[in-house]
Amino acid sequence: MIKRENEMKVAVHKEFLGGKGTLTNIHFLDIEDAAGSGRLFVRSILEPGSSIGNHTHKGDFEVYYILKGKALVDDNGIKVELNPGDSIHTKNGSFHSIENIGEENLEYIALILFDQEA
Amino acid sequence: MIKRENEMKVAVHKEFLGGKGTLTNIHFLDIEDAAGSGRLFVRSILEPGSSIGNHTHKGDFEVYYILKGKALVDDNGIKVELNPGDSIHTKNGSFHSIENIGEENLEYIALILFDQEA
Repeated sequence: MIKRENEMKVAVHKEFLGGKGTLTNIHFLDIEDAAGSGRLFVRSILEPGSSIGNHTHKGDFEVYYILKGKALVDDNGIKVELNPGDSIHTKNGSFHSIENIGEENLEYIALILFDQEA
Repeated sequence: MIKRENEMKVAVHKEFLGGKGTLTNIHFLDIEDAAGSGRLFVRSILEPGSSIGNHTHKGDFEVYYILKGKALVDDNGIKVELNPGDSIHTKNGSFHSIENIGEENLEYIALILFDQEA
């Protein structure tokens, strides 16, 4: 099944999970099509200065894969800068946050997948 | 867990699944870290003229999300051009192929996830 960019669901979140500014999620796969594998399959865009607040994953895990821009992440208590090509994997039971600390939009793939071994 | 671009597994495949030329997969999440959710989490690069041959998914499904370049895909029997921002979802039991028909590298996210409803 083909989905064109202009047919994808676009969700705009303000101060998401206690963060700052604006997060835009472009859903390249909808949850109804994920066959029980996960609950989020998006290209995320955080505007300069915007962030997602710290949150813990329970029953699932999340991966961010950076495409453009510069991120500061909190990786379960350790703050690290990420650049395009880097990833962060937040396991079931761990927490993370992400902030755009660059001057252009921060773009990344975000996947939330269910922990099938839990 | 942070993974830097230069720490990721890079797999180079020639004439993959009966296709042409060279496919490079950059593994931003390893299968050991996927908690049973899937078996491929990569940024794929197909050089101009390169392709992956037609193949059927059994027990899993695959999503391609185009980042750069121009693709010709066979979506379970229907040939379609894809551009950056477009996606193709190949369900459990369906087949697909992909070819770089542009003049620059074709880059896309490829995810193979297990069908938990099968």
